[in-house]
Amino acid sequence: YKRRTDTGTSLKSVFWGTFVHSTCNEAVQVLEDTAVGVDHEGKIVFIKTGEDVQRVSQEVGFNAADVKQLGKHEFFMPGMVDAHIHASQYSFTGTALDLPLLEWLNTYTFPVEAQFEDPEFAKKIYSQVVRRTLRNGTTTACYFATIYTETTLLLAEIADRVGQRALVGKVCMDRNDGASYYKESTEESMRETDKFITQLLGKGYPLVSPIITPRFAPSCTSPLLEFLGKTAKNNDIHVQSHISENRDEVNLVQQLFPDCKSYTDVYLKHGLLSRKTVMAHACYLSDKELEIFHKTGASIAHCPNSNISLCSGMLDVSRVMKHKVKIGLGTDVAGGYAPSMLDAIRRAIDTSKALTILDPKHQTLTFQEVFRLATLGGSQALSLDDQIGNFAVGKNFDALLVNVSVPDGPIDICNEEDPKVILEKFLNLGDDRNIVEVYVAGRRVVPFDNTS
Amino acid sequence: YKRRTDTGTSLKSVFWGTFVHSTCNEAVQVLEDTAVGVDHEGKIVFIKTGEDVQRVSQEVGFNAADVKQLGKHEFFMPGMVDAHIHASQYSFTGTALDLPLLEWLNTYTFPVEAQFEDPEFAKKIYSQVVRRTLRNGTTTACYFATIYTETTLLLAEIADRVGQRALVGKVCMDRNDGASYYKESTEESMRETDKFITQLLGKGYPLVSPIITPRFAPSCTSPLLEFLGKTAKNNDIHVQSHISENRDEVNLVQQLFPDCKSYTDVYLKHGLLSRKTVMAHACYLSDKELEIFHKTGASIAHCPNSNISLCSGMLDVSRVMKHKVKIGLGTDVAGGYAPSMLDAIRRAIDTSKALTILDPKHQTLTFQEVFRLATLGGSQALSLDDQIGNFAVGKNFDALLVNVSVPDGPIDICNEEDPKVILEKFLNLGDDRNIVEVYVAGRRVVPFDNTS
Repeated sequence: YKRRTDTGTSLKSVFWGTFVHSTCNEAVQVLEDTAVGVDHEGKIVFIKTGEDVQRVSQEVGFNAADVKQLGKHEFFMPGMVDAHIHASQYSFTGTALDLPLLEWLNTYTFPVEAQFEDPEFAKKIYSQVVRRTLRNGTTTACYFATIYTETTLLLAEIADRVGQRALVGKVCMDRNDGASYYKESTEESMRETDKFITQLLGKGYPLVSPIITPRFAPSCTSPLLEFLGKTAKNNDIHVQSHISENRDEVNLVQQLFPDCKSYTDVYLKHGLLSRKTVMAHACYLSDKELEIFHKTGASIAHCPNSNISLCSGMLDVSRVMKHKVKIGLGTDVAGGYAPSMLDAIRRAIDTSKALTILDPKHQTLTFQEVFRLATLGGSQALSLDDQIGNFAVGKNFDALLVNVSVPDGPIDICNEEDPKVILEKFLNLGDDRNIVEVYVAGRRVVPFDNTS
Repeated sequence: YKRRTDTGTSLKSVFWGTFVHSTCNEAVQVLEDTAVGVDHEGKIVFIKTGEDVQRVSQEVGFNAADVKQLGKHEFFMPGMVDAHIHASQYSFTGTALDLPLLEWLNTYTFPVEAQFEDPEFAKKIYSQVVRRTLRNGTTTACYFATIYTETTLLLAEIADRVGQRALVGKVCMDRNDGASYYKESTEESMRETDKFITQLLGKGYPLVSPIITPRFAPSCTSPLLEFLGKTAKNNDIHVQSHISENRDEVNLVQQLFPDCKSYTDVYLKHGLLSRKTVMAHACYLSDKELEIFHKTGASIAHCPNSNISLCSGMLDVSRVMKHKVKIGLGTDVAGGYAPSMLDAIRRAIDTSKALTILDPKHQTLTFQEVFRLATLGGSQALSLDDQIGNFAVGKNFDALLVNVSVPDGPIDICNEEDPKVILEKFLNLGDDRNIVEVYVAGRRVVPFDNTS
């Protein structure tokens, strides 16, 4: 640490109090009486537990009066990672949940996404979804936008300006029988993808990167998929898509790609599975398919609200974990109605408990394990766990300051409780009112300043 | 109407705007440009749709300036009915959800309920739960308290003072092998029940009534159940208990009551099933048992959060409705972690959708039907539908003023939407911030005045 300050990366902030996070060994680790120092680049430069404020301040050469000391009912936790969210569907979130996936897309989704050619509409909705998810504690979002390059760049710009870490994807789809007004030609999709990546990388946004985004196998031809696989490989860039969300979709993929052994095989054959790939849903993967995920390092974004709301299926997360496949959580707005990772946590527990009702031998996820999925798990799913996901020296300070006892908040604290109980109350009952501050890369981005 | 004002029951308030409620024929009926008049007893005296404010005011002899006109994003809906909630478990709500029912009771619940002998503790927790549920939109709550008469009377007093309509039950249990420190003798339970009913009725609270509350068959002997059945019948009083929540419990009841044909038969034989009876859970009832419910007029409180959270089971509400059994929703705090009927609505939809995932032929509940369960359905389940449950002349004005677009609220309104879409957004995404006013019997009880 000393070397860092010596070289000029000086301390920006020191926080003192209770820190709750996950490690690979412990689903919930509680660090009480702990000091965390953050430098001007937003990186954690020290974590010191069990000393007093004065001593730490002296040791690190920081004014004790400038240390931010947490209150009795406050703690820091890592910012949450939404591993799958459709920014362009936010306008109808909370509605239109009465049809199964393929009809839902044609009836509700494509007509709305087609509106995003309009920059005014896009700006309004994208600003809303970035601000909403950020104040709900999503410090990193993996976004689907639409097929429109210009407004997808706008989403990236808004995330950068408001201060959310994001992967942003221009949607690629050169096949859409159900709604032919909303698709691209194969050439267009290739050209626009290149343009999108070049332009977004050219912006040099520190927190926002492009992600290659074939919508899903049914809406892409084989040549397009192949091009996207190559582009991902050549640029060492992230990939996202959907897989095995619903039974009809799985059958459709088998029809459309008769030469592929499985849905997973479609993406594998086209070079789209790597450790930088995240696939949403994965409700119906076979053991063989999960093995391919494990081998390629591709990950799963579990979207329990969506899977229930569209009657898609119930993913057995324990089974995924047994296959050592990386897994995080996604809200999947608007198939999932809630733009909130706290909701994703609750619904992941519900789904696991529903599986236990069906089979008492099922290994129910604990709230601690699901907390890890929403933070460290998400960072692993997006291959960003070298940068974010928990509190560790060298990682970014992406963090939520939680106060479970805010005035007019949703939680009553009835007894003296230990931090794990407080965490459980927050995960089950808390909302954005309890997330009093949000930090991304050491910058406080919530409460919003009015210029963003 | 004119006769009413002539006889002196004069108009207290006139509200003008959009009213959303359920009727027996329509799960969601939207009344736009509607005036509702409420008298000084809190009863609805007229509902007039499609006229203007001036004309209505003139017609009913009310100052147009005193008409409360709703804003663009506001509507009134009926107050929600929580048909099953344990006030005494509120202190640990949101925690302790890792054990199945019978272990959960012994480990978490009984030690906490035993604390309610202490009036100070009881006063604190009961005040919290009444205020919390009221601001969450529960205008009527059907409460379990504890075995302690004095503090159960305190819960009734608090509900009366804060202004919540409530049925309040002193818990009866003369058998508790798992936690023998928390039970009564048979005689004590009988004597205290009599005392509780007499004393509570003696208070003359206009909104709060006693309800006879055998905890559930496993914790009551046959003589106690018989006494409670007779007491209910002799006093024409409500009854509540639990039934068929979890498979182990169902088996235990079969062992404890070998002469009874079913769990339902236990309550039937002891005279506890009437049109004033509400039974929580009912996950595993046979068709024959549901027929008994139908014939006796007993009802079910569906508690989906609890049933998932404790891995108890998944009630098929469509099947219950096909048997024409009355059904409402309960939060079942703290087996259900959320003291919010909006959560109960969401979880009821989730459970129905999970059943659809398991069997695509299952008839999924619509959000409209579940909205009805939370309002009119609950009033029917508690046999209070002559007084509350929807907007009808002669019923009490128990109502929520909902604003989906409050500053710093949880909902973004992205487009002009029709009232049904607005309702769906509120049911999926709203919280207490959107419930800007709560009325019980015409009295505005939220926001709280500081004296209550």
